[in-house]
Amino acid sequence: MAGPVQSIERAAAILRLLAGGPRRLGLGEVAASLGLAKGTAHGILRTLQHVDFVEQDAATGKYQLGAALLHLGTSYLDVNELRSRSLNWADALAARSGEAVRLGTPLEGKVLVVHHVFRPDDTLQTLDVGSLLPLHASSLGKVLLAYGTASLEPPDAELEAYTRHTLVTPERLGRALAEVRELGWAAELQEMSMGEGGLAAPIRGQGGLVVGAIGLSGPVERLCDGPGHPRPSLITLLREAARAISRDLGAARW
Amino acid sequence: MAGPVQSIERAAAILRLLAGGPRRLGLGEVAASLGLAKGTAHGILRTLQHVDFVEQDAATGKYQLGAALLHLGTSYLDVNELRSRSLNWADALAARSGEAVRLGTPLEGKVLVVHHVFRPDDTLQTLDVGSLLPLHASSLGKVLLAYGTASLEPPDAELEAYTRHTLVTPERLGRALAEVRELGWAAELQEMSMGEGGLAAPIRGQGGLVVGAIGLSGPVERLCDGPGHPRPSLITLLREAARAISRDLGAARW
Repeated sequence: MAGPVQSIERAAAILRLLAGGPRRLGLGEVAASLGLAKGTAHGILRTLQHVDFVEQDAATGKYQLGAALLHLGTSYLDVNELRSRSLNWADALAARSGEAVRLGTPLEGKVLVVHHVFRPDDTLQTLDVGSLLPLHASSLGKVLLAYGTASLEPPDAELEAYTRHTLVTPERLGRALAEVRELGWAAELQEMSMGEGGLAAPIRGQGGLVVGAIGLSGPVERLCDGPGHPRPSLITLLREAARAISRDLGAARW
Repeated sequence: MAGPVQSIERAAAILRLLAGGPRRLGLGEVAASLGLAKGTAHGILRTLQHVDFVEQDAATGKYQLGAALLHLGTSYLDVNELRSRSLNWADALAARSGEAVRLGTPLEGKVLVVHHVFRPDDTLQTLDVGSLLPLHASSLGKVLLAYGTASLEPPDAELEAYTRHTLVTPERLGRALAEVRELGWAAELQEMSMGEGGLAAPIRGQGGLVVGAIGLSGPVERLCDGPGHPRPSLITLLREAARAISRDLGAARW
């Protein structure tokens, strides 16, 4: 069986690099970051530009991601079964709970947000679809970690401290994940951003395997009825939605 | 100077193919569609799967687009200057006009929607970001064609008739585009979908070149105050927004 195609792996690495920050990058920066010869990097960049995966800024000659990726990315959403089966349940959960709803799936040691229903009020909110959240500092991520759907990359990765509440030692994280499995849901309270939090529950597919997570997110005082105490009514609504989606995905009752 | 890297071009063609429809595709279908040997197609698909650009359905072995593309696609939006400079103006235009606002940029003989502000009422609307619209049957597309920012691919492409109002002959389309240049804005009335229409104006960048288009869209009776007669008040609001964004992008006053 043939091995992976090196030029495609390199092209993917360049696209990831360009997606990693808000800046455009020059040829030298791309080549140096990936340890490629400039000529090699240039050939790949020219090809990526030719297929509209990369654009070159006319003024500076620097590179950035291209328009074709947006169409591919939204086309991915159209075929994502987890998302399509969840749309109506996510809308209903947002309406009943009065909170924002997000749906997460694992991607490369992070949580990829594949759906986001805004909190049903008139506040200004930013669409999180396509964003990556840390596994250890989000409720969606804790669910994916707890049930083995996602794992830290590398497994002994240092856990970044976003706030003083972030679980940064493997021991504390391990205990938290055991509790998630025990309770059937996860909470994250001010562990990524002070004042903010999230609650999440697992979504299971055929055979009962956890394939994703659905969660509520927002200011901690909305999610909790006391310090560190998530509102039971929100947990109930959340778990009902997760079970309904799981049934739609073909999971047996659990 | 090195030529394009064939395996990357082939990988891009496979991703485009998978984005082309709602169905998952088998190895044989992918290979046949692109005229590749099965072994070649398999090597590329396996590599694309390895970098999370493609996912394989466990039950059927068929392929679909992968999660990494969603993150790349939304990262493209973050660095898109046309979009970031337009966000506030698009919000204001939707609020003032009471209509939905969309922003378009050319991609491969179509219009790529890079921003979409919903009509400010409580109706159910679907986010069009990432969608491709036909150049000849959308107001955004007519603007891009009229100012040479986009062109039909191939140039003598047959123009698809979506409704009986679609401009399908080069002569009729040519006259319509000359009128767009004359007026400085474009209208599309029931040319893609009966009952629906759009109005659009050009956005210019540095040097005055048209780099994109901004438009209003919705039911024709909202956009027009008589058959085939767009409301002058909407045209004024639209053109003011287009001029404001153009100034922000560095276009001199025009």
